[in-house]
Amino acid sequence: MKKLINRPETFLEESLLGFAAAHADMLALDPEFRFIRRRILKPGKVALVSGGGAGHEPLHIGFVGRGMLDAACPGQIFTSPTPSQIHAAMQAVDTGAGTLLIVKNYEGDVMNFDMAADLAAEMGGGRIARVFVDDDVAIKPSQQSFGRRGVAGTVIVEKLLGAAAEQGRDIDALQALAAHVLPRIRSMGVALNPCTMPAVGRPTFELGPDEIELGVGLHGEAGVRRAPLSSADGIAEELLDCILRELPAPRHAPVLLLVNGFGSTPMMELYAMSHAARTGLERHGFAVARHAVGSFATSLDMAGCSITVAWLDDDMIRLWDAAVETVAFRWG
Amino acid sequence: MKKLINRPETFLEESLLGFAAAHADMLALDPEFRFIRRRILKPGKVALVSGGGAGHEPLHIGFVGRGMLDAACPGQIFTSPTPSQIHAAMQAVDTGAGTLLIVKNYEGDVMNFDMAADLAAEMGGGRIARVFVDDDVAIKPSQQSFGRRGVAGTVIVEKLLGAAAEQGRDIDALQALAAHVLPRIRSMGVALNPCTMPAVGRPTFELGPDEIELGVGLHGEAGVRRAPLSSADGIAEELLDCILRELPAPRHAPVLLLVNGFGSTPMMELYAMSHAARTGLERHGFAVARHAVGSFATSLDMAGCSITVAWLDDDMIRLWDAAVETVAFRWG
Repeated sequence: MKKLINRPETFLEESLLGFAAAHADMLALDPEFRFIRRRILKPGKVALVSGGGAGHEPLHIGFVGRGMLDAACPGQIFTSPTPSQIHAAMQAVDTGAGTLLIVKNYEGDVMNFDMAADLAAEMGGGRIARVFVDDDVAIKPSQQSFGRRGVAGTVIVEKLLGAAAEQGRDIDALQALAAHVLPRIRSMGVALNPCTMPAVGRPTFELGPDEIELGVGLHGEAGVRRAPLSSADGIAEELLDCILRELPAPRHAPVLLLVNGFGSTPMMELYAMSHAARTGLERHGFAVARHAVGSFATSLDMAGCSITVAWLDDDMIRLWDAAVETVAFRWG
Repeated sequence: MKKLINRPETFLEESLLGFAAAHADMLALDPEFRFIRRRILKPGKVALVSGGGAGHEPLHIGFVGRGMLDAACPGQIFTSPTPSQIHAAMQAVDTGAGTLLIVKNYEGDVMNFDMAADLAAEMGGGRIARVFVDDDVAIKPSQQSFGRRGVAGTVIVEKLLGAAAEQGRDIDALQALAAHVLPRIRSMGVALNPCTMPAVGRPTFELGPDEIELGVGLHGEAGVRRAPLSSADGIAEELLDCILRELPAPRHAPVLLLVNGFGSTPMMELYAMSHAARTGLERHGFAVARHAVGSFATSLDMAGCSITVAWLDDDMIRLWDAAVETVAFRWG
């Protein structure tokens, strides 16, 4: 295992110290390493809290800031944050307008965010709402009791809800918006090489020298099938076919195309995949109205990418375009 | 070789098409694929043109935009852009105040940018000035007839000169600024794993399973020495020792710390290295006034990182902080 680390036991803390020091102008690290938060909160705004296992950076800590999250809780690598960790973040960023929890749909994450919400309710805080992101089309809900996984589409959910919260929408409006946008965001990934967790020291799965894993999860979970390595165009077409089967968008609908690198895929390949996916979507009759290309929801050093297609409406376009100031997304 | 590509022959063009489509709001791709340019130029501003072999993205195309470059010319992977390509970019973005060429100090790049400048001079255009970036301390000037290589410090040079040009400084002032900042920016890198060029299909060099290359170049060139893999702290200390020997900064001087991933190094490792380098610099008596952590000057899918230390003064801090709107750097 070749990594730039000291010891697996201190890796997360050292990484968070590096992150907090580099972005100290706008973000702060809880002294007990439980969460990253905005330095300046906006009173009267619904607080947005997310989190999940570390190893997916910039998700979630890189999306804390004006126009997106108020706080993010990193668990150990690929491990859910604890309920007390999440609860501490909720307390730290609550300004009285309620709290929205954005949770990727994994059993451990859902359980721990639920327990944190229960803790907060017991202490008599404000309203709490929960959003479970399940954009990955690779696993059918029938195949897994817990339903679909949340993957790179989470970034879009955090951006849209974050912009709406910043505009002053209340917690009911945000929950309605979440119910509207979640079925319109669909993703699927492909791995070319596995990742290696520092505490484990060997790859999370094995792939032959010319083999790829279609439908891979964000932690290297098995997907739809193993296949021989094909071309960028061929891979994009297969991912889009699976995505579009589950996306009820009419032809000519405007879409957001997000091409997400898993950690060790060079930008040249991500942009070549973006080209392949855009031309593929256009062949299917869609208009790519917005793009995002980069490594946003990663799996340590896994090679490969995912494609996310979000069916936009005017409100979603305005929310996507709205000003944002985080480590990973900055515009407007 | 596992890559998300169609054919090596069309990879650069497809990647540029993907890049241009994703950033069409602010950038445009020359129809002959010769350069990426700002859509809107600022009349009366000195034009900044850079470029170099592809494979280092986001360098240089990701640094085109308000506050940095006016145009960037991507050559084929790890291959200099041609003189006619550079000359075409110079013509496209010249608004009459002269042109500054920012060139990484490699023989092929210097030769082709020089020939482009000669072409432009023959056609009787405005003033042309050249800046050769040579921040890599790994190779001593005496070891290589051509002098030191330009590596990740190039990003800082482009940011500072870009901000100064945007403020309206003239070409003489920019050249004086370049002469002031270049000796204050020093870098060194370490590779954990090599990269693979699509047209070659095998790794650019070989490393044992626990071996690293200290002082590696941006194309996987050999560096100072092979060494066994050590800790993040140990690697940071060795890189800083080499860098600080060549940096005439006094104790307590404010510095910019740039930790640059080579392409396949996860953000968690880069931030852990940033933490190691920051604490190392503080032990040496320096104050880290500004940070930049990310994959800015890459070498396709090479694993590892470089550290750059820039000795700042008040003018440089203001130029670094100035508003910038490019794909890779956006703030202010």
